[in-house]
Amino acid sequence: MSASRLVIIGGSDAGISAALRARELDPAVDVTVIVADAYPNFSICGLPYFLAGDVPDWRSLAHRGVEELRATGMELLLEHTARSIQLEAKTVAVADAAGGMTELAYDRLIVATGATPVLPPIEGLHLPGVHVLHTMQDAFSIQGMLEECGAESVLVVGAGYIGLEMVEAFASRELTVTVVEQLEEILPTVDPELGGLLRREIANHGVDVVTGARVESIQQKDRALVVRGTSGLERTVDLVLVVVGVKPDTELASGAGAKLGTKGAIEVDRRMRTSLPDVFAAGDCAETYHQILRSPTYLPLGTTAHKQGRIAGENAVGGARVFEGSLGTQVVKVFDLAAARTGFRDAEAEAAGFDPLTVGCRAFDHKAYYPNAHELDIRITGDRMTGRLLGVQILGHRDGEVAKRIDIPAVALSAKATVERLNMFDLSYTPPFGSPWDAIQVAAQEWTRKRDEALVGA
Amino acid sequence: MSASRLVIIGGSDAGISAALRARELDPAVDVTVIVADAYPNFSICGLPYFLAGDVPDWRSLAHRGVEELRATGMELLLEHTARSIQLEAKTVAVADAAGGMTELAYDRLIVATGATPVLPPIEGLHLPGVHVLHTMQDAFSIQGMLEECGAESVLVVGAGYIGLEMVEAFASRELTVTVVEQLEEILPTVDPELGGLLRREIANHGVDVVTGARVESIQQKDRALVVRGTSGLERTVDLVLVVVGVKPDTELASGAGAKLGTKGAIEVDRRMRTSLPDVFAAGDCAETYHQILRSPTYLPLGTTAHKQGRIAGENAVGGARVFEGSLGTQVVKVFDLAAARTGFRDAEAEAAGFDPLTVGCRAFDHKAYYPNAHELDIRITGDRMTGRLLGVQILGHRDGEVAKRIDIPAVALSAKATVERLNMFDLSYTPPFGSPWDAIQVAAQEWTRKRDEALVGA
Repeated sequence: MSASRLVIIGGSDAGISAALRARELDPAVDVTVIVADAYPNFSICGLPYFLAGDVPDWRSLAHRGVEELRATGMELLLEHTARSIQLEAKTVAVADAAGGMTELAYDRLIVATGATPVLPPIEGLHLPGVHVLHTMQDAFSIQGMLEECGAESVLVVGAGYIGLEMVEAFASRELTVTVVEQLEEILPTVDPELGGLLRREIANHGVDVVTGARVESIQQKDRALVVRGTSGLERTVDLVLVVVGVKPDTELASGAGAKLGTKGAIEVDRRMRTSLPDVFAAGDCAETYHQILRSPTYLPLGTTAHKQGRIAGENAVGGARVFEGSLGTQVVKVFDLAAARTGFRDAEAEAAGFDPLTVGCRAFDHKAYYPNAHELDIRITGDRMTGRLLGVQILGHRDGEVAKRIDIPAVALSAKATVERLNMFDLSYTPPFGSPWDAIQVAAQEWTRKRDEALVGA
Repeated sequence: MSASRLVIIGGSDAGISAALRARELDPAVDVTVIVADAYPNFSICGLPYFLAGDVPDWRSLAHRGVEELRATGMELLLEHTARSIQLEAKTVAVADAAGGMTELAYDRLIVATGATPVLPPIEGLHLPGVHVLHTMQDAFSIQGMLEECGAESVLVVGAGYIGLEMVEAFASRELTVTVVEQLEEILPTVDPELGGLLRREIANHGVDVVTGARVESIQQKDRALVVRGTSGLERTVDLVLVVVGVKPDTELASGAGAKLGTKGAIEVDRRMRTSLPDVFAAGDCAETYHQILRSPTYLPLGTTAHKQGRIAGENAVGGARVFEGSLGTQVVKVFDLAAARTGFRDAEAEAAGFDPLTVGCRAFDHKAYYPNAHELDIRITGDRMTGRLLGVQILGHRDGEVAKRIDIPAVALSAKATVERLNMFDLSYTPPFGSPWDAIQVAAQEWTRKRDEALVGA
């Protein structure tokens, strides 16, 4: 049995993944994807690299072009907006760019409406020159400020992943860059020991880094913007970018009565079913099951959106696939460094009921005698009593294979491994790329030593 | 209860790992390590990089210096050779450099005598200018040929890991290099589809690559060596390096009555116990338990030697640690490429009783729009009926994080994952370092498609 008409609301990672999977499994299903803009399947994570100039043509940000997508047999309604869902009639009301309305009938519906930028309570966010970055259109607006308006200085509000990528992008275009983070250290998704190293890297590239200050107001002064905040913050810049996170875009689903869950995201089970009949949700608008918590959380990431979309697409055409869940595995490149994490940090593990111990360790990415060896800073979090691995953070040189190295504990977490078992994994080694004990294993041994010392001392 | 006197025969990876672990766990144990040469704890895997000139000072090849080792409390008997083991008396007869004999008493003994180079049946192997590469002394001899004797051309017999590393080393010193492999393709530990790509890389660096030819004789002609073999092979060179593999060095253990197992290696259980009372063995002299085979095999690798040594050291002082086993995970850098594998290839899987399917796939190491993206060639082997992952091979650019990327399936194999489960792993992503579906996951999806096509077609 397959749904003969599958309607998908949203043309980004989750929506298109769902459409591709549905068409792959069931060539008989009619798939219609409602795309709010003209940019389906664009890599939103690539926007900072487009704005940095690393990606000269914005079109290459598309994972797949419109023709390639249509060749799979899916229908794309570009620049169409879903306005409402009628559960009884099983239809979606859709507005085209001119405002003309149609009703689209569905047998199964997938909501993949994504997220929208969080707007903090800052006075003056409406001023020209104040931007967010979440869509291609946002990127074009910033590009315009840089190329046509000749912006020379920028203040970035928020030093998370996108904030730091944009700091690098602006600095590489030789703008004067200030970044303001409300918390005490930048990249607060990793421990401050690692954030501090990143901060040094950024400062070394001439960036003005302000932490522990909250932006309160932005005012226009001639053609410039004056940004003021706590701790005496005051900077005058041409451009302000506000990137302090996202929140799930749930208006459509909740308007139809869908239950909302963690952090206001659409409640879904592990088959990506919402509380509404025949309605699935996937991606940044929906909850995600956490593998360690064993309960829902909200972690809007492209990797998760792809996986959830694929599962929603499969299940919408009759499958019964269960989502294994997220670990919050992430990596970011900032100038010559890479910072990565998977699983829990200390406080998160404690909140989840574990008895965590986090141990830091420094180890070379490859044998020190081979040229260009770099030290990696690794922090392992494990449960003191059971020895269970709970999370890992790595910070190191961009050539230190940090991204794929964090994937080792990410897979180990899925296998519910102990910290000690990391030592048993048969990992690859050759002096130019590693060590007989990988840096992760060196850190695991250090964790065990520290844990045992603490047990003996106790 | 601990062994009060622990004697370890062998000062390379396994022996020193055992000594370090024993001292770490039991500071009361007397640990004596009998080291045949003056180079304990040297990174033998680093010899090609020393000979290439990448490592200017040979001393930096030591994982740890003699003083650092002695500071842990272990005794090192350098340039001492163990001659025999007396099981009844629990002693080892040891000869010093001058031939003077002593008897060393032990409560527990660890044999870590390593391996010796295989010498193929080639006439003229005794000639000056014909070398093997397994010890620091071998490296010094070759270094002498290059620096003092001014060798300008070399023929390498064997295109395995070390052969190819030495091809690169010699080429980087601008020698004229020929490499001869008896099998039809170089690096026969990976599929010929990948070996062929490596061959092209090597040939592009001006190396003369001869495959499907067996070297039969080496003859001296003036100061040069004439190498002849099947398929009309004839080359005249200054230096010949024979690197066709190693065999376990078991003379001492078998002289004492230890049972030998797979490929003549010392039979050990998963606690690294030999058939002899109170005698353990670890490293290249011993068998290794294979995680997929669930039975012993012989895989002489530094990573395994470190792990086995650590376990033998722990168990020799009263521990009960069980070796999780090997997967044969390996990586080699050859010029600008890296080649890696873990687990089984098709024929190996078939021999082990599986119904394997191997599918090749090409995917970018990171988003193609970000500069310097490189395609990786990935081959996944899985069991057709159960979907179980059996092995992965990757070949790609040296900057493509190939080494740590092969570790993803290596950990997955330890977790007995299916190919399809690779898609569920929450791996890291940012455009400069990856894709929302990692290349390994793209390959896993391709494997599943091909498997399903074959099932439908059947």
